[in-house]
Amino acid sequence: MTTLDKIANLAKRRGFIFQDSEIYGGMSGFWDYGPLGLALKNNIKKSWWKRFVDSRSDIYPVETTTIMNPKIWIASGHTKEFSDLLVECKKCHKRFRADHLKNQRCPECLAETTEARRFNTMFKTFVGPVENETSLAYLRPENAQGIFVNFKNIIDSYHPKFPFGIAQAGKVFRNEINPSNFIFRAREYELMEFEYFIEESEWEKWFEYWLKQTHSWLESIGLEKSKIKDAEIPEKERAHYSKRTVDIHYEFPFGFDELCAVAYRGNYDLKNHSEKSKADLSYFDEKSKKRFIPHVIEPTFGADRLAMAILSQSYQEDEINGEKRIFLKLPPFLSPIKIAVFPLLANKENLVKKAQSVYESLRIFFPMMFDYAGNIGKRYRRQDEIGTPWCITIDFQTLEDETVTVRDRDTLKQERIKIQELKKYFENLLGI
Amino acid sequence: MTTLDKIANLAKRRGFIFQDSEIYGGMSGFWDYGPLGLALKNNIKKSWWKRFVDSRSDIYPVETTTIMNPKIWIASGHTKEFSDLLVECKKCHKRFRADHLKNQRCPECLAETTEARRFNTMFKTFVGPVENETSLAYLRPENAQGIFVNFKNIIDSYHPKFPFGIAQAGKVFRNEINPSNFIFRAREYELMEFEYFIEESEWEKWFEYWLKQTHSWLESIGLEKSKIKDAEIPEKERAHYSKRTVDIHYEFPFGFDELCAVAYRGNYDLKNHSEKSKADLSYFDEKSKKRFIPHVIEPTFGADRLAMAILSQSYQEDEINGEKRIFLKLPPFLSPIKIAVFPLLANKENLVKKAQSVYESLRIFFPMMFDYAGNIGKRYRRQDEIGTPWCITIDFQTLEDETVTVRDRDTLKQERIKIQELKKYFENLLGI
Repeated sequence: MTTLDKIANLAKRRGFIFQDSEIYGGMSGFWDYGPLGLALKNNIKKSWWKRFVDSRSDIYPVETTTIMNPKIWIASGHTKEFSDLLVECKKCHKRFRADHLKNQRCPECLAETTEARRFNTMFKTFVGPVENETSLAYLRPENAQGIFVNFKNIIDSYHPKFPFGIAQAGKVFRNEINPSNFIFRAREYELMEFEYFIEESEWEKWFEYWLKQTHSWLESIGLEKSKIKDAEIPEKERAHYSKRTVDIHYEFPFGFDELCAVAYRGNYDLKNHSEKSKADLSYFDEKSKKRFIPHVIEPTFGADRLAMAILSQSYQEDEINGEKRIFLKLPPFLSPIKIAVFPLLANKENLVKKAQSVYESLRIFFPMMFDYAGNIGKRYRRQDEIGTPWCITIDFQTLEDETVTVRDRDTLKQERIKIQELKKYFENLLGI
Repeated sequence: MTTLDKIANLAKRRGFIFQDSEIYGGMSGFWDYGPLGLALKNNIKKSWWKRFVDSRSDIYPVETTTIMNPKIWIASGHTKEFSDLLVECKKCHKRFRADHLKNQRCPECLAETTEARRFNTMFKTFVGPVENETSLAYLRPENAQGIFVNFKNIIDSYHPKFPFGIAQAGKVFRNEINPSNFIFRAREYELMEFEYFIEESEWEKWFEYWLKQTHSWLESIGLEKSKIKDAEIPEKERAHYSKRTVDIHYEFPFGFDELCAVAYRGNYDLKNHSEKSKADLSYFDEKSKKRFIPHVIEPTFGADRLAMAILSQSYQEDEINGEKRIFLKLPPFLSPIKIAVFPLLANKENLVKKAQSVYESLRIFFPMMFDYAGNIGKRYRRQDEIGTPWCITIDFQTLEDETVTVRDRDTLKQERIKIQELKKYFENLLGI
């Protein structure tokens, strides 16, 4: 079994991530989050939001809709640019990009292919009661355009000082031909991005700044430097308006692939929207007394890919007393459950009661779990598998001296701590 | 100007809520959130999540996709039930439900109408490169079905004790014919819901419980009891499988209308999905040793409608020294900005510097704003309009004795507080 399979397996078994619509045979490219997976993803998102939005006074967050006026996607170039010509094999029914084929034969089974058909990877829909060209709309394939079309609103309502950014986190939709690699290439997923508006002359400085910030944040959530590398996108593969784009790759179990990206988009988007909508999307800088259409640096982060990178890196196997152990070595601040509480024995009422009271007294402060099923070793393993950093066991000594054992997921060491000191103890460990 | 217009006006002017795609003439039924509106909505969502998910050990949160296997919507009845027959007036082009018309004339301009056309209020899309019946899919019109089809996953991974619930908050999409009343009737909006799984014999008890819990939470976020009323849905208007549904109405500026709902859905959904998918969606209760398909109580809350109710109720006008004042009397824990900091005069460098240092020392603990533009009265008004409960002013006395004035939005009273006591002071006021 590859590590990717092992991770997907654990994710399903322990309720992190499920195949979408599983009881109906699934839906290719769509994934559902269970309670633990959702908590993990939310912890990553919270860290991102804190770093790039809350802790800064120059970033303005917005939440725009999935379905927007389709003129936006015409202006941005998406209706054209996102369009591929595909052919289908008449025998195996696999589909391929027409421009990747050398002749009219299927590259896999060599059977004849159909005529090429145009295929835009934006999902289409119709808004209003009639389905025709005038009601055609799209599900957004990125958050950025929702930001650009609100540029004027932010200027008018908030009068931000230059430079500043507008951020958005939310679901995006891309009708991928071949969803693959678990949640890595999905059709519905979550991006966290922002546009940082700058003067053209300063783009190199700000590009470096945001590239560094991106790396620094990736390290702060526990991703190893050695598993991350920058991929400079060469000119011929960059969008024509971009003078520099760096994809930041992470070493997933299937190899290095894109985790996030920093792109310099020039002022292509604002200029286009300004021309097409006739709205004035310029900025007047009080300091320099200049009016101009700002350029932008765009850092983009995939929330699901980040969750997958964290899961990949945390997945560990070792041996304890000759028995294989699977555990998630998650940074505690990302762990869905911080602390589990066990009574040593499930059939001793006084131990169970005491354990419950410890659990109840702490669960208003930390995400917790209570478990009394099976022997204590099994309960440790269950928490190890979901990355819980600390397990509290209530034993007979607890009833005498009000101390409990706290067992560490990574070192396996146990410490005896007074119940009344537990809150402080964990707050220190979590740095809160 | 009606109060609804006033609120929509303030929401746009101060950057709470913008018309979606505004620079392209908008998109009917879609709305974007600016920084302050997003913070307000997020504060409401956090309060809901804390109350109904985090503070309970019997509710399991999930996040499922917008696009799911279309068989789900066949099994749930949505492909049929959500379908209306519409006619269009050939002159004024307004559309009406065919079954609401007495003859084939437009009820507004009396011109002839078209033939009736079938219209399903689920948004359609196509998944994969070919657009036909086999690739047809829908954007979810509710979160509930994503919960039901993950019932077995939650059982298998979490072994929950009975009774328990599964919760989900997220965007839903309904192709409303007539979006109206600002964000009240939109086409894309956010629902927070959960299914609470129970034994049939106990449905009345749990219905009462969740109805009470719902009211109690609505009060906790500051909605006045007198503006809330229950609407019992009579049998003939209820879904055939529901023995009781209560819509909870709030008195919006345009009248009482639905804010949230509590529905008893029997075991209609799980039974249908079990039959159609052939999956075993029963629950084995260890205590009673019985296996059965659980019944459910479903409380549903509209995040956008809640934001709108809070805005409606908070919107106030009064007079200060003969000048009209608009202010949002938000409960402080929902206010987007908790504290604003002003130097008394913008052109006194020592005041500005001191104000900045007070601002910097507090902004890691509270959402804050710094403002030095215009006279102090104007700055107070600006904060009043966005519902900021407290404004700190740094004046000449501050430079002498390290005290500042804290001005209260509602009482207009000012207190002098020592800088070093500010953090505790506001923590007390916010109850944190």
